Amino acid sequence: MTIKTLEWKNNSLKIIDQTKLPLKLEYIYCKDLKTLWWAIKKLKVRGAPALGVAAAFGVILGIKAHRTQTKIQFMLELDRVIKYIKLSRPTAVNLFWGLDRMRRLARKNINKPIENIKKLLLKEACRILEEDRAICRRMAGFGVKLVKNGDRILTICNAGALATVDYGTALGVIYRAKETGKRLKVFSCETRPLLQGARLTVWELKKAGVDVTLISDNMAAELMRKKMIDKILVGADRIAANGDAANKIGTYGLAILAKYHKIPFYVVAPFSTFDLKIKSGRAIPIEQRDSREVTQIQGIQVAPFGVRVYNPAFDVTDHALISAIITEKGIILPPFSKNIRASLKRRP
Amino acid sequence: MTIKTLEWKNNSLKIIDQTKLPLKLEYIYCKDLKTLWWAIKKLKVRGAPALGVAAAFGVILGIKAHRTQTKIQFMLELDRVIKYIKLSRPTAVNLFWGLDRMRRLARKNINKPIENIKKLLLKEACRILEEDRAICRRMAGFGVKLVKNGDRILTICNAGALATVDYGTALGVIYRAKETGKRLKVFSCETRPLLQGARLTVWELKKAGVDVTLISDNMAAELMRKKMIDKILVGADRIAANGDAANKIGTYGLAILAKYHKIPFYVVAPFSTFDLKIKSGRAIPIEQRDSREVTQIQGIQVAPFGVRVYNPAFDVTDHALISAIITEKGIILPPFSKNIRASLKRRP
Repeated sequence: MTIKTLEWKNNSLKIIDQTKLPLKLEYIYCKDLKTLWWAIKKLKVRGAPALGVAAAFGVILGIKAHRTQTKIQFMLELDRVIKYIKLSRPTAVNLFWGLDRMRRLARKNINKPIENIKKLLLKEACRILEEDRAICRRMAGFGVKLVKNGDRILTICNAGALATVDYGTALGVIYRAKETGKRLKVFSCETRPLLQGARLTVWELKKAGVDVTLISDNMAAELMRKKMIDKILVGADRIAANGDAANKIGTYGLAILAKYHKIPFYVVAPFSTFDLKIKSGRAIPIEQRDSREVTQIQGIQVAPFGVRVYNPAFDVTDHALISAIITEKGIILPPFSKNIRASLKRRP
Repeated sequence: MTIKTLEWKNNSLKIIDQTKLPLKLEYIYCKDLKTLWWAIKKLKVRGAPALGVAAAFGVILGIKAHRTQTKIQFMLELDRVIKYIKLSRPTAVNLFWGLDRMRRLARKNINKPIENIKKLLLKEACRILEEDRAICRRMAGFGVKLVKNGDRILTICNAGALATVDYGTALGVIYRAKETGKRLKVFSCETRPLLQGARLTVWELKKAGVDVTLISDNMAAELMRKKMIDKILVGADRIAANGDAANKIGTYGLAILAKYHKIPFYVVAPFSTFDLKIKSGRAIPIEQRDSREVTQIQGIQVAPFGVRVYNPAFDVTDHALISAIITEKGIILPPFSKNIRASLKRRP
């Protein structure tokens, strides 16, 4: 794999512009926070784990230019930057998790000189990035035990290298399977409205030599009926304490279809995606996005002008529909409320 | 309603070019069979009942130029024309039903002069067209009893005026509800890959002043979870003797989601859509269409070049998932095998 979704280079965050894929592989060098903020907002960088890393470097970019003398001013500025980044996207909790880690580190080192705190913050952001690489590989190590040679796996959206630093959550499992000699066949839901499945998942799986077939989202049930799917693997944007999992719109529907057809449904996500302050998925905020994402495709109008649109970017899958959650600390089985708390205490 | 999907005019079949909607309302005058055949193949005219009418007029266009002297040659030519039309699209049985009616009429009048048979065939095609108008209104009369003022109805693809001569099957029920003063809210699945929901259903519902909201197909489950849907109304392309119903890809998935959320799921279709020679849906042939329908949207490439695609145009909804089938002879409830046969004998 040679995909580098996020890279810290020459004091800027170099990211792949995912809105240009699959036809063009272009990079954006985010030298300031505003550039990165818009890149997040416009989904040029996306995917819950990648957003955690991007947010951490957003803090670095946000405080870079700040030249205050007093520590109180510095801490206020840090808070202002963090607050601003939080406004970019509401659902993926990794973004908030990354920011919390940065804030906690600064608070812990409040007695050190500002320049030292800045250096420690950069070190922390780089650590978050490196950890993501390692965590994805650990998740893949656990997840690969659940897939068999010849399995046909359905996935939605992009939970791959492009959703993390370089390996992926759900697709990480598929990459590991390939590395260990298992042959899998992957079906990728195109994932309307923004087609992350068609544009991103197909692109990176093809690049990695994985056997992939594209379908439109409404074909998934028919594939299951025809016994063409053995397992479903998806990522997550936020997992509540009871195991309810927010993920790309369409995931909840797939989970119901999987239950109906008796197909195992697995969520692959690091612990940074868990939000244990939230008891159930009902409390997870769901981002509503611009209606033009549905009425236009790549700038071409496909629906009558002025039509009302409902466009939630995510849905919440009830924990009762999830067979297991694969994390960097192991595979969590139901009952999730109890087992998530127990896993959290485990060392990775 | 001022939509005229199909009209026989100046010895040609005037059809709305549905591939140009919603941005342009253009007509095609099919003066010969080849033009109509391609219009069917390319979905310029589509919808099961409309295809029954189009096929009948296809026979008229096919034999128009034929100048044979002998009746045997005429009948062979008629058979050749019918065979050719049958090759256009395999799933909607109305097409075959329309052709069978034309063939039967010719056989019945075999002793008359060729010119008289031709006149009788034209009369039969016009009768099929007029019957469709009446049947849609009768179905709507039965269907409207199932909907309540304030109902929020989900539909997929286009089962409206554009799928029939001028009124619709599933949308006919909605038009009748509006005419009788019931206020409904409609959610239209965009219906990938060819977006008949976004392009056609939204267009005609807006034109008729019906409150319509567009969603992408993968949002349906989330709407149901949020209790935003009271009923689902869909059309059908072929219904087997046991009630299994082939319809646009995605319908089967909606029916499973409806069952899970305890939402009634209704199929609205005339008896010309029933294929009682077929015992169950498993025997219904499903059309596989060009991969570019998925990889390109309005000519714009959205997926990596060369990706494998699975593109079935229809799926089959198990009869156990259907609450009732609304026909021109009344509402058919389960058990379908028994009640479909009983309804068939009933006078309309």
